[in-house]
Amino acid sequence: MSANSGGTAKIGTDWRVRARQPVGYDVRVLNGLLSPSNPALAEACGTAPGRSPRCLLIVDDSVDVLHGDRLRAYFEAWSIDVEWHVVPGGEQSKNLDEVVAITEAMTGMGILRRSEKVVAVGGGAVLDVAGMAAGLYRRGVPYVRVPTTLIGQVDAGIGVKTGINHGTHKNRLGSYYAPEVALIDPEFLRTVPKRHIANGLAEIVKMALIKDAALFDLLELAVHDLDAAAFADGEPGGPAVEIMSRAIGGMLDELEPNLWEEVLERSVDYGHTFSPSLELRADPPLLHGEAVAVDMAVCVALAHNRGMLGTADADRAIGLLRAAGLPVTDPVFTTDLLVEALRDAVKHRDGEQRIPLTDGIGSATFVHDITREELGEALRFVRERAGSDTVLVRAAR
Amino acid sequence: MSANSGGTAKIGTDWRVRARQPVGYDVRVLNGLLSPSNPALAEACGTAPGRSPRCLLIVDDSVDVLHGDRLRAYFEAWSIDVEWHVVPGGEQSKNLDEVVAITEAMTGMGILRRSEKVVAVGGGAVLDVAGMAAGLYRRGVPYVRVPTTLIGQVDAGIGVKTGINHGTHKNRLGSYYAPEVALIDPEFLRTVPKRHIANGLAEIVKMALIKDAALFDLLELAVHDLDAAAFADGEPGGPAVEIMSRAIGGMLDELEPNLWEEVLERSVDYGHTFSPSLELRADPPLLHGEAVAVDMAVCVALAHNRGMLGTADADRAIGLLRAAGLPVTDPVFTTDLLVEALRDAVKHRDGEQRIPLTDGIGSATFVHDITREELGEALRFVRERAGSDTVLVRAAR
Repeated sequence: MSANSGGTAKIGTDWRVRARQPVGYDVRVLNGLLSPSNPALAEACGTAPGRSPRCLLIVDDSVDVLHGDRLRAYFEAWSIDVEWHVVPGGEQSKNLDEVVAITEAMTGMGILRRSEKVVAVGGGAVLDVAGMAAGLYRRGVPYVRVPTTLIGQVDAGIGVKTGINHGTHKNRLGSYYAPEVALIDPEFLRTVPKRHIANGLAEIVKMALIKDAALFDLLELAVHDLDAAAFADGEPGGPAVEIMSRAIGGMLDELEPNLWEEVLERSVDYGHTFSPSLELRADPPLLHGEAVAVDMAVCVALAHNRGMLGTADADRAIGLLRAAGLPVTDPVFTTDLLVEALRDAVKHRDGEQRIPLTDGIGSATFVHDITREELGEALRFVRERAGSDTVLVRAAR
Repeated sequence: MSANSGGTAKIGTDWRVRARQPVGYDVRVLNGLLSPSNPALAEACGTAPGRSPRCLLIVDDSVDVLHGDRLRAYFEAWSIDVEWHVVPGGEQSKNLDEVVAITEAMTGMGILRRSEKVVAVGGGAVLDVAGMAAGLYRRGVPYVRVPTTLIGQVDAGIGVKTGINHGTHKNRLGSYYAPEVALIDPEFLRTVPKRHIANGLAEIVKMALIKDAALFDLLELAVHDLDAAAFADGEPGGPAVEIMSRAIGGMLDELEPNLWEEVLERSVDYGHTFSPSLELRADPPLLHGEAVAVDMAVCVALAHNRGMLGTADADRAIGLLRAAGLPVTDPVFTTDLLVEALRDAVKHRDGEQRIPLTDGIGSATFVHDITREELGEALRFVRERAGSDTVLVRAAR
């Protein structure tokens, strides 16, 4: 049998096993997900004519408080028997104890292996930990992702990665485990605090910088109006809807050909070279998007100082991050720690730096020979741009 | 884009992501794996002309004692820098703490994500736990399996499953994570105790019962001579070599078209309906193959009592298990506990019993309506066959 078709071939005393695992999921953007008249969530739980299955619902604290009543009413309206499991939420939830607690909830309810779903509703952290638990329980039970934060809706909630932190290492343990569907309702964003809207904007700015100059232009024009209400009440054709759509579509286009990261040069790793080692070390810890923003600012400076990016574009990039309410410097991003973070990134990227840099807004390339000196110069460049009001920006969050 | 070719398609406000993950690995049967002149293991570690990479070597206690010196000499001869990590081995090692300890060893050595391998040498348990750790660390680093027990060489070490136990549930958490290669050297079996040879024979008898009548005949003829030396010194064309080859090939043929268990009716689940819930509850615990043997004896009786299997064939099957030194009854296999175990199997099989039974030696079919009464009758049938010497068989192990 050929390698492509799969099969087991015996060659002498050896066997060669070849197979391909089909993976597929939908990302649906829709409004009124928790309105009892909307069948989308019930269908994702496996509801069909004459069939009201059970599900395990994993929510984070905020969702429990803000949307718990509506969720209960929704599932009651659809006669779906729900086992309710609350995870604190935030990075501190991304640990093995929470994974185990979720799997014990599955054992407790006696979840069926294929026809009863795990449904996670919340921020990126709870989606990560619930996805990891769903992937490990009986080697995988189906799950549904309902991201309720901006960063979840454009980034953490629409790919196939799950993970937990270990020590100060972000996502040190995890898996590639696709959901059956990700349901994106921008109305959830109405209750998202300003700092967490900025957190999501960081990943959107990333998509703009690496591949979508038009998205960058849109962001520059709209950034001062991109608050929670703008996303929650976005009109079709309006900037918020267009920005979300471009961000999601751009991300999925990048992920799909490399879903299991066989290729380690990933432009979506922009801003994720230094930040994974530093996000959890900041005191107080940075949000993920904030650490990514500081990393991106360093990368803008690295590209500028190599002559890959003009001064005007570098200023535009750093200016957009600041206008989005994001930090571009942080005390934890010192030259020493950048060098240490890069060392771990090199291990993650199998021995090479493979640092994505912008060589023009909307375009990315990879470099492999960034030096300690360049990192120091990049930090100085960003600090000059950030000026004295950087502290004010952070304090105002 | 079509579902087959993969791709991301936008439909209205929805995206559809489709991809196929290629998975492949080799199972190589060879002698003298630890002889310094044999390049197989060094090549599996990534050795190439001018290149001597590091690896993380995970061994269990027995391998450390029995083969530690030869392993050290082998890696020294090939100039491979080895980080050595010992796991106790046996079912009690299949827990999250051991998984975490292995991932911490990876962090400690700063293993590269793709070009430095995790190599596990030992019984099925250490392969399961090392495979799970390799699959989770940075969402997957490559690993190599070297099973050193008979059950590892014909079953646990040649598929893609990893796992740990949780509570009294076998493999409650785990993954499908293919090794790069599984290296099978029958010479390791020379030091395997008699009870553990029988443990592996249970899975070989399973393959014979579900799909290979010729293997069953071979086993009947050779069973009294199938000791550790017979496997370790097996001549090409001799019964031990033929039996291993048929068992491995038969297993891979069954696994490959259903590597991720999309189909829940798996004939290789024969003997694995009741045993997963009972193996760890026996006091002292049964070995995996022993629990499978008792489960198979129950299933032989279930098939006999339904008229699917003649009395002579039922007696042959139970006789072969006993001749292999395996138990066919155990105090923990009571009607009550069989009913409870079946309840969990039904959840694992998504709401249906899907019990594989033999409808003739070398052929399997599935039933979905086994009753409590039938389980009680099956136990009585086996106890009559086992006779009063059953206790002696267990005590003699």
